[in-house]
Amino acid sequence: MDVGARLDRLEAESALRRLGSDYCQGFDKRDWDRFAGVWHEDAVWVVVGAGVQFEGLEAIVEQARRMWEEPELRQSHHHNANSVIDIDIGGDVATGMTDVHVNVELGDHTWQRFTATYIDRYERRAGRWKIARREAGLASELFPVSDPDAHGRDR
Amino acid sequence: MDVGARLDRLEAESALRRLGSDYCQGFDKRDWDRFAGVWHEDAVWVVVGAGVQFEGLEAIVEQARRMWEEPELRQSHHHNANSVIDIDIGGDVATGMTDVHVNVELGDHTWQRFTATYIDRYERRAGRWKIARREAGLASELFPVSDPDAHGRDR
Amino acid sequence: MDVGARLDRLEAESALRRLGSDYCQGFDKRDWDRFAGVWHEDAVWVVVGAGVQFEGLEAIVEQARRMWEEPELRQSHHHNANSVIDIDIGGDVATGMTDVHVNVELGDHTWQRFTATYIDRYERRAGRWKIARREAGLASELFPVSDPDAHGRDR
Repeated sequence: MDVGARLDRLEAESALRRLGSDYCQGFDKRDWDRFAGVWHEDAVWVVVGAGVQFEGLEAIVEQARRMWEEPELRQSHHHNANSVIDIDIGGDVATGMTDVHVNVELGDHTWQRFTATYIDRYERRAGRWKIARREAGLASELFPVSDPDAHGRDR
Repeated sequence: MDVGARLDRLEAESALRRLGSDYCQGFDKRDWDRFAGVWHEDAVWVVVGAGVQFEGLEAIVEQARRMWEEPELRQSHHHNANSVIDIDIGGDVATGMTDVHVNVELGDHTWQRFTATYIDRYERRAGRWKIARREAGLASELFPVSDPDAHGRDR
Repeated sequence: MDVGARLDRLEAESALRRLGSDYCQGFDKRDWDRFAGVWHEDAVWVVVGAGVQFEGLEAIVEQARRMWEEPELRQSHHHNANSVIDIDIGGDVATGMTDVHVNVELGDHTWQRFTATYIDRYERRAGRWKIARREAGLASELFPVSDPDAHGRDR
């Protein structure tokens, strides 16, 4: 493989890892421009298990905003790990599988902790890598967390 | 360092990070082909503390499968972080130190949460980077988790 | 962008990710040479919220050591995730935003679990990328953890 193609692949991997980070940083910090920036206009966001999907950038961002409202989220933390990325550099397409450790506090001060796995399809269009499709599947049952009283004991 | 060597080092780092991800993804999702693919035929997997080690790809994969059976695991989640990788590109050898946050649910629905650190030796043979030796050492005592009853309260 | 500049940017990203890992590995394992190695001589470490900051390598390392003594830490685990790195390669400057999941056990065997976000400024001086400024801000309230008794039940 020539130098240009090798650089291209390495830069693509860097860009794809960045998308994964911007997704979490954007959602958790409610930086909606950052969150919106990771998706193609016609992207599809599938919530496996819930059996629902959101089609198109506008619907995806609207859903993300809604997730902060009902059930109300007091805080949200998505931490990525174990990204496995395969790039077809000539085809401007890549696939990814990434685990995420999620901790959210609901409006009633109860917590949910779980892991999920993102199965992604990325496409490069007009030179920009973005998510074309993300399937978010629960990778675990809810982890145990303390009851809200225990929370107070930790302060 | 010339362009070829610089690209080689960057591609090696990418390949080594991929091994770390495939190890976790393979074990947790019981994708044994993926798990087996990260080890050289004569690799050694040392479980520090337990004072045991497994030699050779076959013994390593067999042990990984056994870990799902006794103690029975209902689910397993290994999340890598903080990889420190040093590559001797000319020597086709690299070393790594990576933390991992582990959450496992046992057959009796109790959970264990802890961190470990992997001390790795990687070798490139026939152009393929794989793990030659992994020492998995407990980096923490068990973290507190709720009693199984608390689990139900999170549902 | 020419080949040299593209390689330079990729190598810079690799070096910056390494700083983030060495910070966590150094602090958690009390490897103070490793911890010290990520900071420029005149670096500034800001603890947002506490409203304190530490100026200069010596003061930063002294503070890190002190954090293990009061409140006494029995163990500490910092796991990075979601690094967002922007590099001005010509200017030898970069910025970063990284989440970290922290689990610490205090001397009284109680635990604290929380997330923080590091806002970093990196500079390359004499060819070496290091942290010029790190602002560590709590990204969450404390997560719930079990009371110490629950800890015993996990042993």
